[in-house]
Amino acid sequence: MPKLKNDTLIRALLRQPTPYTPIWLMRQAGRYLPEYNATRARAGSFLALCKNPDLATEVTLQPLARFALDAAIVFSDILTLPDAMGLGLRFTEGEGPRLERPLREEREIRNLVVPDPDQHLRYVLDTVRQVRKALADEVPLIGFSGSPFTLACYMVEGGANSDFRNVKTMLYNRPELLHHILEVNCRAVTAYLNAQIESGAQAVMMFDTWGGTLGTAEYREFSLAYMRRALEGLKREHRGERIPSILFTKGGGAWLEAIAASGCDTVGIDWTVDIGTARSRIGVRVALQGNLDPAVLLAGPKAVHNGAAAVLAAFGHGAGHVFNLGHGVSQFTPPESVAVLVDAVHDLSRAYH
Amino acid sequence: MPKLKNDTLIRALLRQPTPYTPIWLMRQAGRYLPEYNATRARAGSFLALCKNPDLATEVTLQPLARFALDAAIVFSDILTLPDAMGLGLRFTEGEGPRLERPLREEREIRNLVVPDPDQHLRYVLDTVRQVRKALADEVPLIGFSGSPFTLACYMVEGGANSDFRNVKTMLYNRPELLHHILEVNCRAVTAYLNAQIESGAQAVMMFDTWGGTLGTAEYREFSLAYMRRALEGLKREHRGERIPSILFTKGGGAWLEAIAASGCDTVGIDWTVDIGTARSRIGVRVALQGNLDPAVLLAGPKAVHNGAAAVLAAFGHGAGHVFNLGHGVSQFTPPESVAVLVDAVHDLSRAYH
Repeated sequence: MPKLKNDTLIRALLRQPTPYTPIWLMRQAGRYLPEYNATRARAGSFLALCKNPDLATEVTLQPLARFALDAAIVFSDILTLPDAMGLGLRFTEGEGPRLERPLREEREIRNLVVPDPDQHLRYVLDTVRQVRKALADEVPLIGFSGSPFTLACYMVEGGANSDFRNVKTMLYNRPELLHHILEVNCRAVTAYLNAQIESGAQAVMMFDTWGGTLGTAEYREFSLAYMRRALEGLKREHRGERIPSILFTKGGGAWLEAIAASGCDTVGIDWTVDIGTARSRIGVRVALQGNLDPAVLLAGPKAVHNGAAAVLAAFGHGAGHVFNLGHGVSQFTPPESVAVLVDAVHDLSRAYH
Repeated sequence: MPKLKNDTLIRALLRQPTPYTPIWLMRQAGRYLPEYNATRARAGSFLALCKNPDLATEVTLQPLARFALDAAIVFSDILTLPDAMGLGLRFTEGEGPRLERPLREEREIRNLVVPDPDQHLRYVLDTVRQVRKALADEVPLIGFSGSPFTLACYMVEGGANSDFRNVKTMLYNRPELLHHILEVNCRAVTAYLNAQIESGAQAVMMFDTWGGTLGTAEYREFSLAYMRRALEGLKREHRGERIPSILFTKGGGAWLEAIAASGCDTVGIDWTVDIGTARSRIGVRVALQGNLDPAVLLAGPKAVHNGAAAVLAAFGHGAGHVFNLGHGVSQFTPPESVAVLVDAVHDLSRAYH
C-alpha cells in the first residue's frame, strides 16, 4: 500500500497531530464552479452526471485542481440510494429532487429491499475507483451516504418540503412502519458505505440533513439510533488503514454529547454552534469538523479571512479539527473566495499546531 | 378596570400559580379552520383581511368559539411593519409574502424611518381595540411583532428564502448598514408593541423566526441585542396591570440562558428542545412557552393525547408553563385535533398544579 502524500485529513479525523488544520468543503464540486457547469451541461442533467463515472470523476477532481484542498469527496447525491431501491429519482430545474414513487402504502414499505451496491450503485463505486486512481494518493477520498432518517424523509415525502408532514405523521401515528423503513435504510447505508470503502474511500461521512427537525426523544429513537447501528456495521479498517467516520446532523447542536457517543470518529457541526463550546463539550471523545457559515464566502475576501480566523481561534490549539463550512458551498460563491479561505486556513492554523 | 375572568395565561407567563396549564397556539386563527377560509375569501386576500379590523377581529375570535383556549392573539402578520415603512407588501399564492422594494442600496437604508403606529398601523390597533371589546375580559389578548432581525431578513431579502444570502452578505460585509436597519427596526418594534399595549394588548410576543439561522456570536450581536433593547423600551405595566413579554427564537435552543437574561418574562421554545432540560437551564428566571411538534396534530387523537402528556410530564410540577406548539399550526391540521389537545392539556395538567 502506498502511503498518502497528504494525510492531514485522516490524522485530524482521528485526533492525531498535524502541522496545520486540513480543510475540505461540503459540496466543493458544484454549481459555483464554471467548469462544473460545463461538465454538467455535457452530461445533460445532474442525474446523468452522477451516473457517468468518467464525468463524475472529472467534477470530483475539479476543485482540487483549483484549490489546495486536503481531501476529495466523491461526487454523488444522497438520493442515489433510494433510487437504487426503485423509488425513481428525477431532478427538475428549480424544484429540486423528486422520488416518483414515494412510500405511502404499508405494502410498499414492507416490500422495500436493501439494494446490492455492486449491482444497483455500481456507477458510484466505479467513480470511487476512478477518483482514487486519478488522485494517485495525493489526498484522501471521502465516501458518503445520507443517514437512514434523512433518506426516509425523502422516501416518504417524495421530495424536500419544509414541514415533513407525511414522515412525521408516520412517526407519530405508525412508528412501526417508519422503524421498518429505517431498519432497511440502516442496512442499505452500511452496505453502501462498506462498498465505497472497498472501492477505495478512505473516510466516510453520514449526512443527517433532516435529523435536526425532530424533537430530542424522536431524534434519538428515529435518527441517532440508526446511525449508531450503521456505524457499528462499518469496516473500521481496510487493507491495514484505519477508515475514519464522520457524522453530521444539521441542527444537532443540542445533542452533541449523544452524537459523540455514537461510535463515530468525528462530529460535523453547523455554523450555529460555537466550535469552542462544542470542543469543550465533546472534544475529548471525537474530532470536530466545521463550521464556517457558508454565507461568509459571499461577503468578500476580508470577511472570509476574518471568518476563518474566528473559527480557528474558537477551536484553539491542538489536534482534532477539520475545517469545513457548516453546510454546503452556495452556488452564488465566487470561486476566489474559496481560494482565500483555503489559503487562510492553511496559513493561520499553523500557529495552533 | 374589570378583572380578567380567566387570567391563567397572564399568571403562568409571570410564573405565578395556576390551577392548570394554560394553552394557546401560534397561528391558532388560520387556514386549518374552514370558517377562517370563508372569512378570508370574503376579504379577497390575506392582506385585505389583515387590513380590515372587522374581519381581522372575526378571525381572531374564531378559534376561541371552537376551543377552550386561554388567550386570543391579534390576527395580523409580522410584515405589516415593513409595509408601514413603505416597502410594499404583497402576498402571492404559493410563493408567500414579498416586499416589492427590498433594501439593497445604502441610500434606501439611510432613509428608513420609524412608522407612526397610530397613522400607518392603525388598522392593527383598531383590531386590538375591537377584539378586546369583543372578548369582554373572558381571556387575555396577546399582541405581537417580528423581532428586529427577523424583520430585517425580509426587508433585505424581499421575501423568505432558505439561504438569506443578501442579509448575511450585508452582515459579514457591511455590518454597519445592517446595524442601522436593526436600530430603526428596534425603535419601530418598541413603538408598535407599546401602541398595541395602549390599545388593549395584555401580553406581547416577539417572533424571532430567523435568529436561529445565525452563528452564536452573530445571534447575540444582530438579533438578541436588539430584542433586549426593544424589551427595555416596552411598557411593563398599563392601567395598573402587568404586561408580560414573550420572546421566541425558533432554533434558539443553544442560547436559552442568554435569551432568558434578555429581560423577557417568558421564553418560547421550539419542539427540538426538551422542555424539562430547558426548565432546568432557565426555569428559575423565566416562564417557558411551548413546545409540542405541530406535526403531532396531524397524527390522530391518540398521538395528540400522548404528545400533550409527554410535554406536560417533561415540564413537571409547578408554575411557569404556557402550553403551545413549537411553531405555528399547520394548515393541514384537523380542527378536531386541536380540540383534543386543548382538552388534554387542561385535564392532564391539573395533576401538576
